Amino acid sequence: MGNEESEYNRPLIHYTPEYGWLNDPNGLFFDKKEKLWHIYFQYNPNGSVWGLPLYWGHATSKDLVNWKHHDLAISPEKDDEGIFSGSIVIDHINTSGFFDDSIDPDQRVVAIYTNHDSNEKQTQEIAYSLDAGYTFTKYKANPVIDLNLTQFRDPKVFWHKQSNQWIMIVVKSQDFKIQIYGSTNLKDWKFHSNFSSGFYGFQYECPGLFEVPIENSTKSKWVMVLAINPGSPIGGSFNQYFIGDFDGYNFAPDDTQSRIMDIGKDFYAFQNFSDVEEGAIGLAWASNWQYGNLVPTTERRSSMSLARRYTLKEININPETKILSLIQRPIIPDSITAVNSIVKTSFHPTINNILSLVAQDSTGLFDFKLRFKIKEKRFSNQEKITFDILVQSQVQDNEIDTVKVGFDAVISSYYFNRAIKNKNFENEFFTDKLSTYMEPLSYDDNNLPVFELYGIVDRNIIELYFNDGAVAMTNTFFMNEGRYPHSIKLVVNNEDSKFEFEQVSLRHLTN
Amino acid sequence: MGNEESEYNRPLIHYTPEYGWLNDPNGLFFDKKEKLWHIYFQYNPNGSVWGLPLYWGHATSKDLVNWKHHDLAISPEKDDEGIFSGSIVIDHINTSGFFDDSIDPDQRVVAIYTNHDSNEKQTQEIAYSLDAGYTFTKYKANPVIDLNLTQFRDPKVFWHKQSNQWIMIVVKSQDFKIQIYGSTNLKDWKFHSNFSSGFYGFQYECPGLFEVPIENSTKSKWVMVLAINPGSPIGGSFNQYFIGDFDGYNFAPDDTQSRIMDIGKDFYAFQNFSDVEEGAIGLAWASNWQYGNLVPTTERRSSMSLARRYTLKEININPETKILSLIQRPIIPDSITAVNSIVKTSFHPTINNILSLVAQDSTGLFDFKLRFKIKEKRFSNQEKITFDILVQSQVQDNEIDTVKVGFDAVISSYYFNRAIKNKNFENEFFTDKLSTYMEPLSYDDNNLPVFELYGIVDRNIIELYFNDGAVAMTNTFFMNEGRYPHSIKLVVNNEDSKFEFEQVSLRHLTN
Repeated sequence: MGNEESEYNRPLIHYTPEYGWLNDPNGLFFDKKEKLWHIYFQYNPNGSVWGLPLYWGHATSKDLVNWKHHDLAISPEKDDEGIFSGSIVIDHINTSGFFDDSIDPDQRVVAIYTNHDSNEKQTQEIAYSLDAGYTFTKYKANPVIDLNLTQFRDPKVFWHKQSNQWIMIVVKSQDFKIQIYGSTNLKDWKFHSNFSSGFYGFQYECPGLFEVPIENSTKSKWVMVLAINPGSPIGGSFNQYFIGDFDGYNFAPDDTQSRIMDIGKDFYAFQNFSDVEEGAIGLAWASNWQYGNLVPTTERRSSMSLARRYTLKEININPETKILSLIQRPIIPDSITAVNSIVKTSFHPTINNILSLVAQDSTGLFDFKLRFKIKEKRFSNQEKITFDILVQSQVQDNEIDTVKVGFDAVISSYYFNRAIKNKNFENEFFTDKLSTYMEPLSYDDNNLPVFELYGIVDRNIIELYFNDGAVAMTNTFFMNEGRYPHSIKLVVNNEDSKFEFEQVSLRHLTN
Repeated sequence: MGNEESEYNRPLIHYTPEYGWLNDPNGLFFDKKEKLWHIYFQYNPNGSVWGLPLYWGHATSKDLVNWKHHDLAISPEKDDEGIFSGSIVIDHINTSGFFDDSIDPDQRVVAIYTNHDSNEKQTQEIAYSLDAGYTFTKYKANPVIDLNLTQFRDPKVFWHKQSNQWIMIVVKSQDFKIQIYGSTNLKDWKFHSNFSSGFYGFQYECPGLFEVPIENSTKSKWVMVLAINPGSPIGGSFNQYFIGDFDGYNFAPDDTQSRIMDIGKDFYAFQNFSDVEEGAIGLAWASNWQYGNLVPTTERRSSMSLARRYTLKEININPETKILSLIQRPIIPDSITAVNSIVKTSFHPTINNILSLVAQDSTGLFDFKLRFKIKEKRFSNQEKITFDILVQSQVQDNEIDTVKVGFDAVISSYYFNRAIKNKNFENEFFTDKLSTYMEPLSYDDNNLPVFELYGIVDRNIIELYFNDGAVAMTNTFFMNEGRYPHSIKLVVNNEDSKFEFEQVSLRHLTN
């Protein structure tokens, strides 16, 4: 891993393509035989902006943070066509008939994707791999679903044990319909039902449905995910989700509430991995269509989010009510270790109100974890009771670039600020300031509210997890040319602090 | 109307209290006899921040833009209590028995509000006025609804002709329930049903239900409004709405979609006026609880939005789909006239790419209207095809403060920017950049997309109406001390412009 200037804004443990353009994650699956994670993605190898022909790029990882680039996995037939988003299933029992006994049941890889043709018609096609996901053969009788539509895409397929069939979740994009189909062989599909809820936005994309375990329970619920672009209330692209039951034919949501997966600006087209050994794991494209083509990385653009483990849990939403929510926790393997760190199990900032970790030879990779309480229950409306985490670049030309995460105890809310005066990047849609209210994670013996914050900074992306993953916020940021994070500081902005930290960890990491 | 420096950030035609603190609009009604609009509001006359005791302040207007301050309308019994939000109905046929024939049927004013007592218990109470809304007598048998709750408030009452009863819409705030009650006398209330949908946020506040006419039709639908604070995806306070049918007992939404009334940061606690002669009219508090108590106006804080006329209309949401949406248009009377203006019925910015209207002796009140088409149908991903409307202060110490609204043709989206380096106001929750995708309003004969934008700037607030009110965005802004808008410019940012303006109107207004 180098600190090359030219790569100052390439994340180390977030997947980025070697060169070219990347968007939606596709075909995510775990190869149980090789214990290998495969990701595919919308890929333009001919330029670092979105454009046709569009391919499925491919990468693999043993640990979800160190990635190996592979050759193009699936290619369109013509240069004005695209292999659009889709998914991969492992056809263990060879329902498709594509495999024989020479192929390990855990490596019977079938891709289901949208073919976008020269006439902009979108149909669902399938392809199979006889080499565990490296090369694919298109099914000769494609397409498997053709409704003669231009806005019909992004099939996510999984095996539904209870009803003994393959299920496809796909969108009639501009008709705002998530469609559910069933099949016994991945080739012949029968329409079951439509689902629609939440925000319309402009159109639906990249739907998904997966079973998510409820914490401290043997139960699970089904989570329907839906990407909307544009039309996020925050601007551009975002991912919604709905919690409910699924019988193989209809998705029955528990309620009509709208829920946002990640309240940052850079988390879109989420997909979960097929064939994981336990629980639910997925990741998203860490950019936004409002500016994804314009960010100041030239030879390649966009990265994925970290892979996250998903569970469901009842969380406090106000003093009276708990609701079942998606909990997201990044998967960070033990191979990622601290170069240096500041770790405290108790920090009373009355005495010492700044903790500063400066990396000598920075990797650009940091994380921080805070567990704190607020020592008073009420504040007057005009008090300022805050602390900040500052992520800062090395000093260059007497300038320093800063990204900030802070907490305001008076309104119990986190704020995030990525405003950086960048000579090479100014964009009116690159929202600088984001925020979220947080209810306390718990209360201590004196009934004082307790909060937790985990953040991971990787060159030009920061993922924030509030209250042990109850709320996530993912944002990219762009420091000036050659600059990237070199220090991380906790700054408490009050003389007589109202905060008490039970845990502070600031770490400079290496992969 | 003066240009007093001390009043540089007091809007002229948006209601602000003479001094003290204002939040939610309450008791909005139209006196048909006097042809007079009454507004009441959450009011702290003892300071310019929220605090108890809290009163109903009062103002009246003949035209909804020129307001007269009145004495306190309803006061709490004790200094640690508050008369919280509520509404007013005209009890024409004296169902309550509070009136006799000496009171004109159009002036039989009954207020229904939440009493917040010393123990933080919230109950619904009523009070009547025998002088057309200036002074009130509390009902001796108050409260009219007491569920022994601390989070139960904001009754909005109206007469429901079809079921011949008064309807109260009120929230069990932290239980996320909009409750519907019925009564024949305003004193005895019977529970009918609960409703819940959309975003949870932290809690429900200020619900409402009103009948809204569908444009070009004799039909109407019911619109349920709901204020959420905090918990807006954009941060802090926001107003949702749902469209459906109401039979006097249950609200049946047409769908489970979430809709936001105004995608700015400063539009909360919307309420419609009772007893209007035709259609539906309402207004909101033009601030946000994330920073409402902190904005740099010292002797008083907050204003209302302009009153808006509400209709429903099928709007384009993408090329395939139209959906019924709330249309909002500000009510601006003829008495508001142009001091000077630039008005063009055709503007081809190839030749002249800046239009600049500078006010000599600025009132700080401006409006602008644009109708434009985009002359190409597709752009490449990295083109920059934009124009800006710049609202700028007078130059002072070689500095100028700017608020910007722009349109980006490549992603068919508007952006708004209120980032101003203000020596007296820096706030991490005061989101600078907001944006919204817009589908074309219509297409011209050559199938080129046509858009419309109306904006009104009033000292320190800007209301934007996209596509004839299909989307509204309301934001306050804070220029440096003594500065306020003095010019308005249309700047097209391309040499060979891709825009063609069919209408441009930039006006410096006086009231």
